[in-house]
Amino acid sequence: MRLTITLAEAYNEAPYPVNGHGKRNVQVLKEAFEMIDGEVDSDMYGSGSVIEQCQDRFAQLLGKPASVFFPSGTMAQQIALRIWSDAAGSKKVAYHPLCHLEIHEQDGLKKLHHLEPMLLADMTRPVLLSDVLGMPDDVACVLLELPQREIGGQLPDYAELEAISAHCRAKGIKLHLDGARLFEITPYYGRSAEQICSLFDSVYVSVYKGLGGIAGAVLAGEYDFAEESKVWKRRHGGDLISLYPYILSAEYYLERRLPRMADYYEGAVQLAELYNGCHASKWTVPQVPVSNMFHVHYDLSKEELEPILIEVTQQTGVGFTHVLRPKNETGCYYEVSIGDRYAELPQEKVREAIRLLGERLNSLDRQTQSL
Amino acid sequence: MRLTITLAEAYNEAPYPVNGHGKRNVQVLKEAFEMIDGEVDSDMYGSGSVIEQCQDRFAQLLGKPASVFFPSGTMAQQIALRIWSDAAGSKKVAYHPLCHLEIHEQDGLKKLHHLEPMLLADMTRPVLLSDVLGMPDDVACVLLELPQREIGGQLPDYAELEAISAHCRAKGIKLHLDGARLFEITPYYGRSAEQICSLFDSVYVSVYKGLGGIAGAVLAGEYDFAEESKVWKRRHGGDLISLYPYILSAEYYLERRLPRMADYYEGAVQLAELYNGCHASKWTVPQVPVSNMFHVHYDLSKEELEPILIEVTQQTGVGFTHVLRPKNETGCYYEVSIGDRYAELPQEKVREAIRLLGERLNSLDRQTQSL
Repeated sequence: MRLTITLAEAYNEAPYPVNGHGKRNVQVLKEAFEMIDGEVDSDMYGSGSVIEQCQDRFAQLLGKPASVFFPSGTMAQQIALRIWSDAAGSKKVAYHPLCHLEIHEQDGLKKLHHLEPMLLADMTRPVLLSDVLGMPDDVACVLLELPQREIGGQLPDYAELEAISAHCRAKGIKLHLDGARLFEITPYYGRSAEQICSLFDSVYVSVYKGLGGIAGAVLAGEYDFAEESKVWKRRHGGDLISLYPYILSAEYYLERRLPRMADYYEGAVQLAELYNGCHASKWTVPQVPVSNMFHVHYDLSKEELEPILIEVTQQTGVGFTHVLRPKNETGCYYEVSIGDRYAELPQEKVREAIRLLGERLNSLDRQTQSL
Repeated sequence: MRLTITLAEAYNEAPYPVNGHGKRNVQVLKEAFEMIDGEVDSDMYGSGSVIEQCQDRFAQLLGKPASVFFPSGTMAQQIALRIWSDAAGSKKVAYHPLCHLEIHEQDGLKKLHHLEPMLLADMTRPVLLSDVLGMPDDVACVLLELPQREIGGQLPDYAELEAISAHCRAKGIKLHLDGARLFEITPYYGRSAEQICSLFDSVYVSVYKGLGGIAGAVLAGEYDFAEESKVWKRRHGGDLISLYPYILSAEYYLERRLPRMADYYEGAVQLAELYNGCHASKWTVPQVPVSNMFHVHYDLSKEELEPILIEVTQQTGVGFTHVLRPKNETGCYYEVSIGDRYAELPQEKVREAIRLLGERLNSLDRQTQSL
């Protein structure tokens, strides 16, 4: 055992990491392409059967007339909002304060498209109908992220969603779905992707979250919307001569993982229950997961928690997370995201690791109390 | 022989196609990854040894402190011009009327970055010092494309380039190189990529033209420039979680093809000579190529030339081009771009095909004269 090891190192070396489908390495590409004939022609700047067949498949899956394969969701979503903004003649769009476009894209939406987002809801809960009702009249588009990743993957009730959709339709406000993890919420809602998408005018899905492809995104909607998005895709520099490394791997992993979304969801529910049953100074958000993900919150600082997680990982072999995120002044949290790996873990190892984690937290409490 | 066949079909079925390195198919990816260990970790949003090592390699090759791997040249070059525009506090940039940004990018530079390009030179020749001297004082950046692809891959004299560079430096105007085909001009100029790049403040090179990778581009310059370009790369949606399918294949083909640039250039010179020696109603631009490419111009319409090319291709097996481009009212032309394939062609087949093409053009002339 090394004297100093980072949490990321401990996680990467652990024989039983909890998150995801597996390592993000070149094998992901090699596996996807192993059985693909080398004679298959590349797509060419958005044309060709490789990209067109994939787009048709996703359009069907999402219940929309057309879809377009993009290199990234960042590109796809900025473009969706720009199209709706241009159509409405209004620069105003609305989304959650922890929306990907607001916090992870270096303000591309503002710097490139000059859109003016207004922030709906507070930071702790998803967007509700009441937030949408409180918007000014000239908002061109509302973006909803389902599940809301940065707050542990929370969801509104389905009836709330239906009400938001009905309101936006009545008012002529476009409704866009950030469905980076759309397939992952279908088991909880008990609705197909197509049913959920029917509430929205445009939809983005990621091919490398729950589906576990290499990179890429799909944007779906009406035919004219899709065609316009292709023009913007070229403007953004996303209309690559060849996107097939992402497209063919997306299709490969789609076939394998779409049928497993219920397993991932159930794994998350089970693991969150273990966490919550064990020690009061940590808890999950949501308490009962509604997708394959949740956050684990602690009343300990990053600096206090890190050595404990490293120790328990090294003792049990179970990797909890590779990174802790600070939260206000005293706490921290991490994200759990269930994929293929979880079903392969020895359950007794996971139980032992979480029990041991609880013990360490308890003994820390006793030390703190005796000071 | 089918009764109707398109030029593209005839070209794709021809046993001896003249252009490029080979088919753009999945085999290009499979070959590049065959010997790469599956355990190699993916790059992650622009970090990790896979992308950093590649960027270091290109920075060294181009003689710049830093380089950044991009999904596309469209994205890289818009960003380069935006950075120089912001630094100068001027929206004015200058380039050739047939610049890629002006004619192939759906006006991304104007629609996303609101830059105001002024067009230098006329459409038939490269940009010269006199064009640059005639610019207004507040131009932030001049972009030079070497070779100028849309006019057959023409180049200015190297002394002209040096004079433009010296002038821009003296005036504080940034000079950006569209070096999509930079490596392809090193044999003619008798200068290394590094020497040519030393005349420029920023440089873009493509990894899928002469190098024959799958897709992608590299932008190089000073360290601060590179760092700023990463921020814009994220804004554009180009900071993908994984770019390794493009990066590792770029490095694989770089090793194989960088040493062959002189062969490609010499092949182009030889083939252009064959074309020019054969019939007066076609000619190449440039007459003597200065890179691996040239255009073949005809005083015939697309509709007149197409059946002749198809016939000669079917008779000899030599594919000339998959597409003709119209030129003014009476003429048309096509692009020739020499890669790995040319050296493998039976020379007598190529000579026979061009001789036969000349005969057909001659007999067409006689028919026309006798009408």
